[in-house]
Amino acid sequence: MVPIVSIVGRSGSGKTTLIEKVVGELRSRGFRVGTIKHDVHGFDIDHEGKDSWRHKEAGAEAVVISSSDGFAVVREVNKEWPPERLASSLLWEMDVVITEGYKRAGFPKIEVVRKARSTRPLTGPKKGLIAVVSDIKIKGTGIPRFDLDDFKGVADLIEEKIIRRKDRGGTSLIVNGSTVELKPFIEGMLTEAVTGMIRKLKGCEDAEYIELRIRRRSD
Amino acid sequence: MVPIVSIVGRSGSGKTTLIEKVVGELRSRGFRVGTIKHDVHGFDIDHEGKDSWRHKEAGAEAVVISSSDGFAVVREVNKEWPPERLASSLLWEMDVVITEGYKRAGFPKIEVVRKARSTRPLTGPKKGLIAVVSDIKIKGTGIPRFDLDDFKGVADLIEEKIIRRKDRGGTSLIVNGSTVELKPFIEGMLTEAVTGMIRKLKGCEDAEYIELRIRRRSD
Repeated sequence: MVPIVSIVGRSGSGKTTLIEKVVGELRSRGFRVGTIKHDVHGFDIDHEGKDSWRHKEAGAEAVVISSSDGFAVVREVNKEWPPERLASSLLWEMDVVITEGYKRAGFPKIEVVRKARSTRPLTGPKKGLIAVVSDIKIKGTGIPRFDLDDFKGVADLIEEKIIRRKDRGGTSLIVNGSTVELKPFIEGMLTEAVTGMIRKLKGCEDAEYIELRIRRRSD
Repeated sequence: MVPIVSIVGRSGSGKTTLIEKVVGELRSRGFRVGTIKHDVHGFDIDHEGKDSWRHKEAGAEAVVISSSDGFAVVREVNKEWPPERLASSLLWEMDVVITEGYKRAGFPKIEVVRKARSTRPLTGPKKGLIAVVSDIKIKGTGIPRFDLDDFKGVADLIEEKIIRRKDRGGTSLIVNGSTVELKPFIEGMLTEAVTGMIRKLKGCEDAEYIELRIRRRSD
C-alpha cells in the first residue's frame, strides 16, 4: 500500500502552508505526491463549482469532468471513506500520500505547533508522532523538531522514514468497500499469481501497474 | 465493464438539461448512475474551488478532499484519460455511465437536435446513434426519436438497451494505464480465479466487489 503520513495540528497552526511547501519540495525531488484533506465541516466540496456540477445535483452518484490536463471527480458516499481506502482507490500510484488532519487515524504524524495557537502538541509518540514543526521548544517528547520554515528538513524526514521505509511496489486489495490488510506471504502469493496470469495476456507482457476490478453478478 | 452511453449534440442543443432529467429519472428507478463530462476547453476544472485546492497548486499530482457525505478528487494527467478508462477506474460500481460529449468515441449515442441550432444530426446509426431527441422530425435515420422533454422515454431506452443488454456484473482490467479488452472466456477465467483466491481470505468469503491494485517494484 502507498505510504501515508499525516500533518496534524490545531486550527490555524499552519498545516496547509507546511503541506504546500513539503509537497513542492518532494515533487521537485521527483516523487509523485498525493494529498488528502479531511473536510470536517463538509464545506469545501459543496463549494466546488456551480455550473460544472449540474449532473451531480441532478442525482448522479459520481461525476467526472475530464480534460487533456486532468480530471475532477465528485462522488457521494453513504459512509465516510477512511483515508486508507481513499489512498488505495484513488492515490495508489503515488510514492507518498500526505493527509491534512486525521489526527485520530493510525498513520505516522507530524504535528505543527504554533505558540500563538497553543504550546502543547495534540498528539505524542504513542499516537504515532514522529516529528514536531514549531516556533517553540517542545519538552520531553524525544522526537525531532523542525522550525516552521524548515520544509526541507520535513521533506528529508518523509523521504527517509516514510517513503524509503517501504519500497515503491505494493499491492492493495479492497473487498466490498473495505481495505483488506494483507500479510506479506499472502500479498506476495496474490501478487505473483495475478501478475503471472495478466502477463500471459497479449500486450500485457510488461505489466507493471495492474488494476483489476470485479463486480460479481448479484442478480 | 460498466455500460456507457453518450449524449451528444451541438453546443447549446440542451445536452446537459437532458442528462440532468435522465439521471434523475434513472436514479429514481434505483440505478446507480455516474456521468462523465468532456471538458474540451480545460476550463471547468481550473474553475474549481480556490482555497480548497492549495495542495494541488503546490504540486500534488492528485488531491482528495473527503467528508462524511462524499469526496472530491482533482488529478493531473500527462495524457487525457479516455472515457473507458475514467469509467473503469472511477465509476466501475455504477449500473450505467452517461457521458456528455465524446461524439468520436465508440459508445452508443443519443443525439440532441434542436432546430434553433441545426436541423441535421452530427452523427448517424453507423457511428453508434441509437436515438435522436429533437424538436423536429429527422428524416431517414430509421431510429427512435423522442421529444425534447421526453426524458422518461430516453430513460426507458437506456434501461432497455444499455443497462439490460449487459448484466450488472463485470470485470475490468487496466494495465499500465490502458484498458485491456477481455474476451468472455478470458474474463470468466480471470474473474473466477481471482474471486476464488480472494474468497479464501479471512473476512472475504462474501466478496462481491473486488478491487485489486498491483504496483510492481520497478527499482
